[in-house]
Amino acid sequence: MADYNEMWKELGMNLEEHDKLCEVLPQAFGDVFLTQENRPEAMDYYNFVIAEIHGVRPKELIEHKKNGGKVFGTFCIYVPDEIIFAADAIATGLCGGSQFWVPGGEKVLPVNTCPLIKASVGARLDKTCPFFRIADMYIGETTCDGKKKAWEILAEDVPFYVMDLPQMKRRKDVTAWKEEIEDLKKKVEEFTGNRITEESLKKAISLINEKRKALMRLYNCRKQKVLPISGRDALVIMQIAFYDDPERFTQMTNKLCDELEQRIEQGISVVKEGTKRILVTGTPLAVPNWKLHNIIETSGGVVVCEEMCTGTRYFEQLVDETKVTLDEQIEALANRYMQINCACFTPNEARIDDIIRLAKEYKADGIINLNLKFCNLYATETYKVERELRKEGIPVLSIETDYTDSDSEQLRTRIGAFIEMLGE
Amino acid sequence: MADYNEMWKELGMNLEEHDKLCEVLPQAFGDVFLTQENRPEAMDYYNFVIAEIHGVRPKELIEHKKNGGKVFGTFCIYVPDEIIFAADAIATGLCGGSQFWVPGGEKVLPVNTCPLIKASVGARLDKTCPFFRIADMYIGETTCDGKKKAWEILAEDVPFYVMDLPQMKRRKDVTAWKEEIEDLKKKVEEFTGNRITEESLKKAISLINEKRKALMRLYNCRKQKVLPISGRDALVIMQIAFYDDPERFTQMTNKLCDELEQRIEQGISVVKEGTKRILVTGTPLAVPNWKLHNIIETSGGVVVCEEMCTGTRYFEQLVDETKVTLDEQIEALANRYMQINCACFTPNEARIDDIIRLAKEYKADGIINLNLKFCNLYATETYKVERELRKEGIPVLSIETDYTDSDSEQLRTRIGAFIEMLGE
Repeated sequence: MADYNEMWKELGMNLEEHDKLCEVLPQAFGDVFLTQENRPEAMDYYNFVIAEIHGVRPKELIEHKKNGGKVFGTFCIYVPDEIIFAADAIATGLCGGSQFWVPGGEKVLPVNTCPLIKASVGARLDKTCPFFRIADMYIGETTCDGKKKAWEILAEDVPFYVMDLPQMKRRKDVTAWKEEIEDLKKKVEEFTGNRITEESLKKAISLINEKRKALMRLYNCRKQKVLPISGRDALVIMQIAFYDDPERFTQMTNKLCDELEQRIEQGISVVKEGTKRILVTGTPLAVPNWKLHNIIETSGGVVVCEEMCTGTRYFEQLVDETKVTLDEQIEALANRYMQINCACFTPNEARIDDIIRLAKEYKADGIINLNLKFCNLYATETYKVERELRKEGIPVLSIETDYTDSDSEQLRTRIGAFIEMLGE
Repeated sequence: MADYNEMWKELGMNLEEHDKLCEVLPQAFGDVFLTQENRPEAMDYYNFVIAEIHGVRPKELIEHKKNGGKVFGTFCIYVPDEIIFAADAIATGLCGGSQFWVPGGEKVLPVNTCPLIKASVGARLDKTCPFFRIADMYIGETTCDGKKKAWEILAEDVPFYVMDLPQMKRRKDVTAWKEEIEDLKKKVEEFTGNRITEESLKKAISLINEKRKALMRLYNCRKQKVLPISGRDALVIMQIAFYDDPERFTQMTNKLCDELEQRIEQGISVVKEGTKRILVTGTPLAVPNWKLHNIIETSGGVVVCEEMCTGTRYFEQLVDETKVTLDEQIEALANRYMQINCACFTPNEARIDDIIRLAKEYKADGIINLNLKFCNLYATETYKVERELRKEGIPVLSIETDYTDSDSEQLRTRIGAFIEMLGE
């Protein structure tokens, strides 16, 4: 890895603490990813991005800032990146996926908060992540109790703007979300000093749609009986999608898809015949949370799809590109984003339809329903998810876990037994 | 207690299970309340109500239904009772405050859900509470993750209507709440077959305002140095307010206040000089949750105020009675209800102002900040509450507990030490 110490120092980071993270990450990545056989060659790009995760992209963002640009940090796939890019700003994901940041969050948050929120708050307050230092403004949302209250604490440390996501999906709620997007547009224009025009928004909508299309293409490859890529590799690509330059990411992912489609044609699979195909559903897996996929794929299974924010929810619907006026474009954004089926909505029956549909499309043998500890939304929805999947005759295993490794062996036993059962 | 077995049977209750509750409640009430010395005579009424809690009021509700009336069950002080009474229907609280109902809730909800929600769901599904059987329709709200998702499960068992409470308090949010109240009005009219008129709503607004005024009068008595009523007694009155006939409740509470005001004049206090005055703040205390007050008041303290849903939040603001048209009346309702400062809002700084103001008004020596386990909203807000109270020089003790008795001794030790410290 190149030497970024000077850059990190200038960002006001806690270098001593951060070094601890830098020491363990390459090993963890190596163990989970580089041990895989027969990986697509185009994974080299994503290996590089992870190897330099706190270096190369932060450097680009700093460059952008030096040229007068702004960087916005986001935590949720309901926040429309299009608005940010349309103002010549850059959006970057900020969700923490490592136990490393959790104790920092627990200094100010209840222990009974989900690890994702604790890690995100800890990464900021402990000054151990460059992305959290670089972002000029954070854009949060009211998706869950834990997040909306955590933002109040973070807002004392960094410029913070909160979008109020409706909790239902009636027609008036879509209109309310449209108004929230209009308010965001004003805020972003004011903060960047750049006006968002029909032209710039059109370009940004196309930019993000192209990223979605590349991810759709990747996921389509995972639907095939000949499976050209592992779940771990697909997951890390998805995680990188939240941070990388969208244009480059799209290009590199399409390049990978060329290789994957060729593999499918040639019958080159990354797994042996009979490996059980698993769809995972539930709470997001933020980088570098690879625990679940790693256990599944070293226990006789392979992950073929994630019905998650870090998965299909991120890319499945496109924004209508035929709209011309700003008002229509923003309405198209509202319509698209309100189609995402998160457990923060009530009711959220459409998510269950999604899971059943995806299980068929991806030819899943079984479903693992993941809940990050203390996420009450997805935990409560589990009751109906399990019941409806059983009605459909689809085997399901529900697990609850956090970012620690203390339950890894127990999970391995349960997941191993579940996968074995699928073969019977 | 009179014999209500036939009535309970007709309600389809699980009598065997319910008997277990009926067996322990009188003992619990006796231990906490009847051991007090020098209670106001007018407490006899509330003693009677609790003694017959599953009998006398349910009987009245059933009578109302026999005459063609409807009963609505509610869970939150944001739901405007006025609308329900204006349609010649009756609103009754449905929040569960006993561990007895918790295991029933845990059959369908995550264990990591707050005991209030688990108890409320368990009381319905286990058929062990007459109020949950009698209510023709439940009216829920989207105040927290746990509740909004629990309603989805309850809605499979009973007609359910959910109001979408905004999560912020901007002008447009008050308007949104007004629209939700208008939608509720339509729903209630449709369900009852009765039209809500300017006249009937005016009457209902006055009815509930009179209840609020009686509670204000009660609480004003608690502000006095001569303290004419214990916190336990005030709490149980407050709890009964959610269930009782509003007109009778107002009348009986005003009668009690006559006695209390006389006591103040005569210098009759229920506590010895030097007893430490405690304000409690945080999550609600639903009937029969008397644990905290009982510990405080048998450890050298007395509770003088509850900044809670079962407390000042329930009655502090009146609805403007000068409005004439339905539209204006509903706007007045929205304005009033949106003044309640619950942790479900972001930000919610006004609650901290309330606590500081109330601590002064009630001459509190210290504050106990209560959190029901797994209520992430109030738990997260604790960080700022504690900090701001310390800035004001007001001693605060934060505790987290549930409905079990397993931590009683530990709480007694901590609360005892806190109260002792207040004397130093």
